Amino acid sequence: MGKILILYHSATGNTAKMATLVVEGAESIAGMEVRVRDVEAATAEDVHWCDGLAVGSPTNMGILSWKMKRFWDDVMAPHWMKVDGKIACAFSSSGGWGGGNELACQSILTVLMNFGFLVFGVTDYAAKLMTLHYGAVAAREPRSDDVQDACRTLGRRLAEWVAVYVDGRGEEHPLCKTRMGAE
Amino acid sequence: MGKILILYHSATGNTAKMATLVVEGAESIAGMEVRVRDVEAATAEDVHWCDGLAVGSPTNMGILSWKMKRFWDDVMAPHWMKVDGKIACAFSSSGGWGGGNELACQSILTVLMNFGFLVFGVTDYAAKLMTLHYGAVAAREPRSDDVQDACRTLGRRLAEWVAVYVDGRGEEHPLCKTRMGAE
Amino acid sequence: MGKILILYHSATGNTAKMATLVVEGAESIAGMEVRVRDVEAATAEDVHWCDGLAVGSPTNMGILSWKMKRFWDDVMAPHWMKVDGKIACAFSSSGGWGGGNELACQSILTVLMNFGFLVFGVTDYAAKLMTLHYGAVAAREPRSDDVQDACRTLGRRLAEWVAVYVDGRGEEHPLCKTRMGAE
Amino acid sequence: MGKILILYHSATGNTAKMATLVVEGAESIAGMEVRVRDVEAATAEDVHWCDGLAVGSPTNMGILSWKMKRFWDDVMAPHWMKVDGKIACAFSSSGGWGGGNELACQSILTVLMNFGFLVFGVTDYAAKLMTLHYGAVAAREPRSDDVQDACRTLGRRLAEWVAVYVDGRGEEHPLCKTRMGAE
Repeated sequence: MGKILILYHSATGNTAKMATLVVEGAESIAGMEVRVRDVEAATAEDVHWCDGLAVGSPTNMGILSWKMKRFWDDVMAPHWMKVDGKIACAFSSSGGWGGGNELACQSILTVLMNFGFLVFGVTDYAAKLMTLHYGAVAAREPRSDDVQDACRTLGRRLAEWVAVYVDGRGEEHPLCKTRMGAE
Repeated sequence: MGKILILYHSATGNTAKMATLVVEGAESIAGMEVRVRDVEAATAEDVHWCDGLAVGSPTNMGILSWKMKRFWDDVMAPHWMKVDGKIACAFSSSGGWGGGNELACQSILTVLMNFGFLVFGVTDYAAKLMTLHYGAVAAREPRSDDVQDACRTLGRRLAEWVAVYVDGRGEEHPLCKTRMGAE
Repeated sequence: MGKILILYHSATGNTAKMATLVVEGAESIAGMEVRVRDVEAATAEDVHWCDGLAVGSPTNMGILSWKMKRFWDDVMAPHWMKVDGKIACAFSSSGGWGGGNELACQSILTVLMNFGFLVFGVTDYAAKLMTLHYGAVAAREPRSDDVQDACRTLGRRLAEWVAVYVDGRGEEHPLCKTRMGAE
Repeated sequence: MGKILILYHSATGNTAKMATLVVEGAESIAGMEVRVRDVEAATAEDVHWCDGLAVGSPTNMGILSWKMKRFWDDVMAPHWMKVDGKIACAFSSSGGWGGGNELACQSILTVLMNFGFLVFGVTDYAAKLMTLHYGAVAAREPRSDDVQDACRTLGRRLAEWVAVYVDGRGEEHPLCKTRMGAE
């Protein structure tokens, strides 16, 4: 049974709302155990526990927040080289489009790669003008259907890769599913 | 008189439309000479000529297009270390939000920094949910008012920095203008 | 049997030498089929064929070369959404330390993520002052032992992840090997 | 008289040593007032005061440290849109080459761009295999001559751009100096 961690920091509640949607997406794949953690309450054990993780942060000055960074710098540093090979992705909410949410996702992925994780984005479009090639992004609250779908798609894809690569369930590979053609 | 180059590559016409809007913004500052060049027709002389430049490219696979890259790799390489200190910025259109337009701007800025340019983004918001902190971005065609205003704001800010730093017109500094408070 | 593609572009021969070392590393894991391709001769079939791939490029102006970019923009674009889920990494040689080889690796990884690949770096150190957290890097020719070992480590780790995740050979997980403790 | 701020965070002392060298470089240009601040003691007034700034941080998990990030997220956030247009650059020490020091510089520059600063790297080589195209970088302590020279070159270039663009001293433009040819 695949284990998924959704780890987030939220200052205004927007990233927390994204986290809830990512959870929905992850739970849409059968056989996944999903754990959600606010970064203020998360522990190294949560990271050790999971097979795959999605990390969300507000976009603060174009990169992840200092509180999310502190978790990896301080809490996780002693566990470096002990958690390699997990599957990981990112999500972030900025003050506006063009405000750095993609760059914030990239900064999260940089941190996650440093821990030896395999990181990914999603090729699929959630709507005609909305995708998540480097993680799910929002401008402030994830209110519109397209942004909400992007968040769910991120969680679903994370669960799919964990199903395929950790649980050996090849039939969950996105390229093997009929919905692929429709998306 | 400040000299501004708008250099772009466009495959579908979307980035070309952004370029036109960036030109409008640059021309909104008095005393600027503005030159527009499609990358297929641009020469090293265009870059030598300008004091400031905005470089636009479609977002292709998350970074600038190979044709825009080729310009800097091939046409400009012999001029490396001969054009340091120009003021520069970026713009890009991707297939959707979350599709890499911020990362494409970052990749353009990386190339421009390599040439010793001073690169910038814009703090101002063009609309409630639209800004251009790392360059002006669009999802496909720059059709909505907010995206169009972001493009114009980029060109205007470029012209302002050239006015302030190259032409010594301190009164054009964004922080000295009354409109700053209103934006 | 895991299939590994080493795809590179080299202008001066330095990145080609890195590619040879990455191949050595990949072949150090039993049961891997390794294919090497110069980007000028590579085809979309090579990418379809592999389970995992390492992509190398000279650092040109801080990002991958236009010729490597063209491969993904032109040759691979029609195959986008048909190759998701491969495991991928990067290597690059720049003119000097601080010259952009890490950023060039990041730009390669950005392109690879766009195709839906799972990308990784390596936590291990190849020598006291040499690691490859975002891909293997060199300043000009990969001449010193530490740089050469970093290249081999990249190939070996790529083969290990393919062994673990594609071939289901859990004993190849870096955290399961006794050598992990010694490195 | 140009005002230069060297702002740094250092956990092991390595980045602090880099800061000292950056200061030397800045002071090598006549007519500069240079202020050095540990991030734990720095205030928003320091940033308001300066015309140009160099920001240094350890490379922690591939990006700037959480303590340096906190300064910009918390201390400086109320001053956002009040400090646009300063000239800025970055430096960072990582555990090894390939360990993220370039990416850490990039993350610092991303934060600085968010504040509307004009950021730059340096085209010059400090030694045959050592440059600083995206900021000055070191692997652990800045002990070798080439790394030390790169740090000094960063400070000097920062002072030169401030001299040229803020103080109107065109003769300090790197391209106007005879030493340019020799480097």
